[in-house]
Amino acid sequence: MLGVSCWPIVRSQHLNRNSQPLSRCLAATWRGPRRQGPLSLHKTPKGLDKSKTTGHIMGMARLNVREQLLSAGLETLHRRGFNATSVQDITEAAGVPKGSFYNHFESKEALGAEAVIKYREASDAWTATRALRDTKAAPLTRLRKYFEGLADRALKTESWSGCLLANFACELSNQSPLIREQVAVAFAEWSDEIAVVIGEAQRVGALSKDLPPKALAEFLINAWEGALLRARVDKDRAPLQLFLKVTFSKILS
Amino acid sequence: MLGVSCWPIVRSQHLNRNSQPLSRCLAATWRGPRRQGPLSLHKTPKGLDKSKTTGHIMGMARLNVREQLLSAGLETLHRRGFNATSVQDITEAAGVPKGSFYNHFESKEALGAEAVIKYREASDAWTATRALRDTKAAPLTRLRKYFEGLADRALKTESWSGCLLANFACELSNQSPLIREQVAVAFAEWSDEIAVVIGEAQRVGALSKDLPPKALAEFLINAWEGALLRARVDKDRAPLQLFLKVTFSKILS
Repeated sequence: MLGVSCWPIVRSQHLNRNSQPLSRCLAATWRGPRRQGPLSLHKTPKGLDKSKTTGHIMGMARLNVREQLLSAGLETLHRRGFNATSVQDITEAAGVPKGSFYNHFESKEALGAEAVIKYREASDAWTATRALRDTKAAPLTRLRKYFEGLADRALKTESWSGCLLANFACELSNQSPLIREQVAVAFAEWSDEIAVVIGEAQRVGALSKDLPPKALAEFLINAWEGALLRARVDKDRAPLQLFLKVTFSKILS
Repeated sequence: MLGVSCWPIVRSQHLNRNSQPLSRCLAATWRGPRRQGPLSLHKTPKGLDKSKTTGHIMGMARLNVREQLLSAGLETLHRRGFNATSVQDITEAAGVPKGSFYNHFESKEALGAEAVIKYREASDAWTATRALRDTKAAPLTRLRKYFEGLADRALKTESWSGCLLANFACELSNQSPLIREQVAVAFAEWSDEIAVVIGEAQRVGALSKDLPPKALAEFLINAWEGALLRARVDKDRAPLQLFLKVTFSKILS
């Protein structure tokens, strides 16, 4: 389960001013399995011909373990934070032996960077994201339903884990260039998706053209993140409601 | 040195919806020195009459060690984050023996809560805060100079450590009720100070009265925190400049 939601998906390999694609980010640190644990799933047991019977089965099992680690890692890192979570916490949450972690990830940092992508992918299914992409509705209506949907999602999650992007931004910007850059890419992609809808609103005359769509989108996302942060501190939805009120009375009007 | 600045001072014991004064927060955990380290400064050396000569000197030394720990703790926790900083990191930064920490603070968490207060007190001296309080200037001019001053401060600090309140909010809201509540009080006090200036602007007719001063102040602070968070991720001042542009063209106009 993801915590308080904040973020839609764009599939492109978007680059902002100071960032590079994740594939390059990860290539910089990912150098294959670092350790072979005793339960490594991609080793061929003695007496078996890998090419005949077990290769694809073991390959799938290996993929499943990796996916389990990534899912459990995302959930745990999101809820507890990066530095408060150990590799053992992740393997325990995934229900796999601790030794198997390094067969699949170079480090907790490498998993954290991939968790950002998985978080982005998960938001494809959110009600809010679907409302944003529903081109049958008017652009400002879509934007309102989108942010209302994010606020609803915040209420539904009892853990008040906030937005993974903001959490990683605050905790890791000075600590992990790899994760910071991936979060920057994620924010830039998110801004692009919002900017498309703002651009539509401007073209149909529903919104003034005095600010470029991308700039306005970035302001909204940043203001949303600040409101979500404050909601977590106050344990109260009021900052999210205030965001909606001010945004749609003063900025998107 | 504080990192990117974000926050002025109000002396009152402000309470928001879900918070209590720090004195009560700390009273809940502070039960005096927990351990007496070998270099404890408030022990009386053998052969000396404490009442005659050394009591006040040792008391001052003890106070200095506490202050050293708090200053070093604030700087280290702000720059590195709470969970990435150990008690030993703090005592090393303070230049005091590790064992002395628990003579002065019940826990790293207790120091963290006091660090929030010290952070608030430090902002009294900031150029931005002085501009906000300069009642000779018009209220909207003071608000503009205030946020411009915070942005300037962000540029001057190379560590890009962000705002301590936001960092603690993201990292500790699910982990430390003590620190979360203190951060909530700090945000509420900060909002009150901004609200006073917005109220002045409304009374002199420089600003519409369609939103209550407190609500507008909270929105601005939240949006500022989001912009600062994004500036850290992008390692770029642009989000702060965007905050100024949108705020003063769409909201404070």
